[in-house]
Amino acid sequence: MSAPRTGDGAPRKRGRPARTDLGGGPGARERILTAARAEFAERGYDKASIRAIARGAGVDPALVHHYFGPKEQIFAAAIEVAFAPALQAPDVVLKGSPDTAGERMARFFLGLWEDPVTREPLLAIVRSAVANETAAAVFRDLVSSRLMARIADELDVADPRLRAELAAAHLVGIAMLRHVIKVEPLASADMEEVIAQVAPAIQRHLSGAS
Amino acid sequence: MSAPRTGDGAPRKRGRPARTDLGGGPGARERILTAARAEFAERGYDKASIRAIARGAGVDPALVHHYFGPKEQIFAAAIEVAFAPALQAPDVVLKGSPDTAGERMARFFLGLWEDPVTREPLLAIVRSAVANETAAAVFRDLVSSRLMARIADELDVADPRLRAELAAAHLVGIAMLRHVIKVEPLASADMEEVIAQVAPAIQRHLSGAS
Repeated sequence: MSAPRTGDGAPRKRGRPARTDLGGGPGARERILTAARAEFAERGYDKASIRAIARGAGVDPALVHHYFGPKEQIFAAAIEVAFAPALQAPDVVLKGSPDTAGERMARFFLGLWEDPVTREPLLAIVRSAVANETAAAVFRDLVSSRLMARIADELDVADPRLRAELAAAHLVGIAMLRHVIKVEPLASADMEEVIAQVAPAIQRHLSGAS
Repeated sequence: MSAPRTGDGAPRKRGRPARTDLGGGPGARERILTAARAEFAERGYDKASIRAIARGAGVDPALVHHYFGPKEQIFAAAIEVAFAPALQAPDVVLKGSPDTAGERMARFFLGLWEDPVTREPLLAIVRSAVANETAAAVFRDLVSSRLMARIADELDVADPRLRAELAAAHLVGIAMLRHVIKVEPLASADMEEVIAQVAPAIQRHLSGAS
């Protein structure tokens, strides 16, 4: 499907305002993004519909496509917003002493999962990614390019990407067991105790120790 | 809801058994369990239907209820079968030198995820647990009582349950990033290299080292 054209036949750039008769106008792009986040969070990638997103934003479905392209790309834009807090991880991890990077990474990442405001969007992304290969691929690209690559770039170890991913894996697994499966005593353990137990393992991954 | 009865127990259309078959047609329980595993794996806990399970097993829905009770309990029985290979983990971990328990646990658990035959049922359970609280609770009970409690019982450390769960969490996270999100290079890394990198962290959790 080709993008809508302007009168002179030139492809319109994404993100440019569309015709107002599609329900556009000021804030339309943001409204679509907000509606998309809600729709994907509630129904998951598979069941989310562009029609419902358009309805939620008060615009024509064609405008959703105009701004974002196909469903996959709407999802990419929506999870980038939902994942924005997590994307601060590289700054948090890399600013400060390398000796305590593991603790900072553990505290930051587990902190995102402690707070329902940041947890729910993460949980919605995980649900979509687990259920759907396309959603997993979109999330993978985001995690690779915006988290793992940036953390790995600063590590002075062999296999920095693999090391960064193993560190992240430990924290992902804790989030799964603590907040999704809710296995006790991990689900109710004091967060500081969890950080104290896990930070040395994260630190070893990041510093290349065995 | 009761099924229609016949007086003579003659076979009926749509696989409805007579009352006399409800207690134990040969292999009926196993057929129901097989059909339940397939239905939960394909459609997830939310969308799985007892009617479809009964159809797959060639029995009346009433017989499914008779053997297993409500949907939650059918799910519990189905995942216990699907999870059976993983339930050998405590034996694998605890038989052998405590000094290499971390490596055995990593190799065993990651090995289950390497092989599609054992991976797919695990993936199906994770999908259901992530999407549905009831499914998560059923899985949690199984993991707690049959895996974590048994491993923790053998650990000579403070907070053995928490330690066992943190060890498991690391491996769960690797499975998520390697087999669900498929982040590179972890997704394609040689399994022996992953084990070599992660076994020391698992070992420290199990042995109570920091």
